[in-house]
Amino acid sequence: MKTDHSVSHMATPEKASKGEQTRRKIVAEAAEIFNRRGYDGGSLSELMQATGLKKGGIYRHFASKEELALEAFDYSWKTIWDARMSRMDKTLTGVARLKQFVADFIDQRSPVAGGCPLMNTAVDSDDGNHRLRARVVKALKSWVDHLQTIVEQAIAQGEILPDADPRAVATIIVASLEGALMLSRMERNDAALRRIQKHLDNYLDKQIAVPR
Amino acid sequence: MKTDHSVSHMATPEKASKGEQTRRKIVAEAAEIFNRRGYDGGSLSELMQATGLKKGGIYRHFASKEELALEAFDYSWKTIWDARMSRMDKTLTGVARLKQFVADFIDQRSPVAGGCPLMNTAVDSDDGNHRLRARVVKALKSWVDHLQTIVEQAIAQGEILPDADPRAVATIIVASLEGALMLSRMERNDAALRRIQKHLDNYLDKQIAVPR
Repeated sequence: MKTDHSVSHMATPEKASKGEQTRRKIVAEAAEIFNRRGYDGGSLSELMQATGLKKGGIYRHFASKEELALEAFDYSWKTIWDARMSRMDKTLTGVARLKQFVADFIDQRSPVAGGCPLMNTAVDSDDGNHRLRARVVKALKSWVDHLQTIVEQAIAQGEILPDADPRAVATIIVASLEGALMLSRMERNDAALRRIQKHLDNYLDKQIAVPR
Repeated sequence: MKTDHSVSHMATPEKASKGEQTRRKIVAEAAEIFNRRGYDGGSLSELMQATGLKKGGIYRHFASKEELALEAFDYSWKTIWDARMSRMDKTLTGVARLKQFVADFIDQRSPVAGGCPLMNTAVDSDDGNHRLRARVVKALKSWVDHLQTIVEQAIAQGEILPDADPRAVATIIVASLEGALMLSRMERNDAALRRIQKHLDNYLDKQIAVPR
């Protein structure tokens, strides 16, 4: 996933000015607060406590709560995406790559506490903030597009059946994982996610892979 | 799903006192407000506007915002559950019944505006209100239990393969539908839900039904 965002430079903090460092610290703390508490529930007082800054010190860097929430979502999504991509074995293709993606989703939870920022922010912004909603739609699309491309390449390479619908395969993976994550978070155990993993692995191996 | 809740008597409003009628009206309006806006986002002023009542007129009936939110969730869940059950053809069994359940989930959306109250409240209460979270966990369990029972009965009747895992089948259906609903609400079209329906129908027909 591409972003044109300043947080993409977090790996080189030595180049950041003091003000820029403070700004990044605010975004990182806000990301967790919004992810746990939602847009309405995320409070300035909690952010002040987490950052050790006063109100003026925070809003010097952001025009509004909305601006901060937008950056916080981008930060959360980029953080989790980068974590998943860094673990991905790039030599894998086709079904093996999709299965690794599923396994990684289950084994490595969001580095930003509070569950999947995509689902949290989707539900939160659905009947709420339009600009925040647009960010979620974009992130969701980038995720489904990514998986779809893997399927398309695998069809071209003869690893996945030519009559498989790449968009449908990608949608089934994302929907199943997100729904199961919701169940697992409610049940406070991995059972639902493990059941979905077994189901998806079976689906990928038996229904869309070209038999060897 | 059983509830011991006063809203279960809504079908006989003629027996309700004036105070009870007011109470029910508050719960019904609050259900939609909380479902759209969440626990933190749901405001007293919006509820006052929706009910035409003043603050005192609302809180005469409820000890706190939490009490009202708990009843509102129960009301939302019962309303959607009753709507689905009333459409269910009780003569169907096994795979046909599971497939009708999937179709109904997709064709008939929540009568309470704002999407699935289960997912909304799950995400909302996950790192928030503990009593609200407990209600969601209970509702989710009742849903998965219901589907699991259908699978168990179908195994006993020889309609579903004996090595199918009833809990896993129920979990796969609930997780897939909830995840796809989130995608469809973000994408503002039914494509994701239709893809999941096709996937689940295929799974039920090809993988767990006893071949005829």
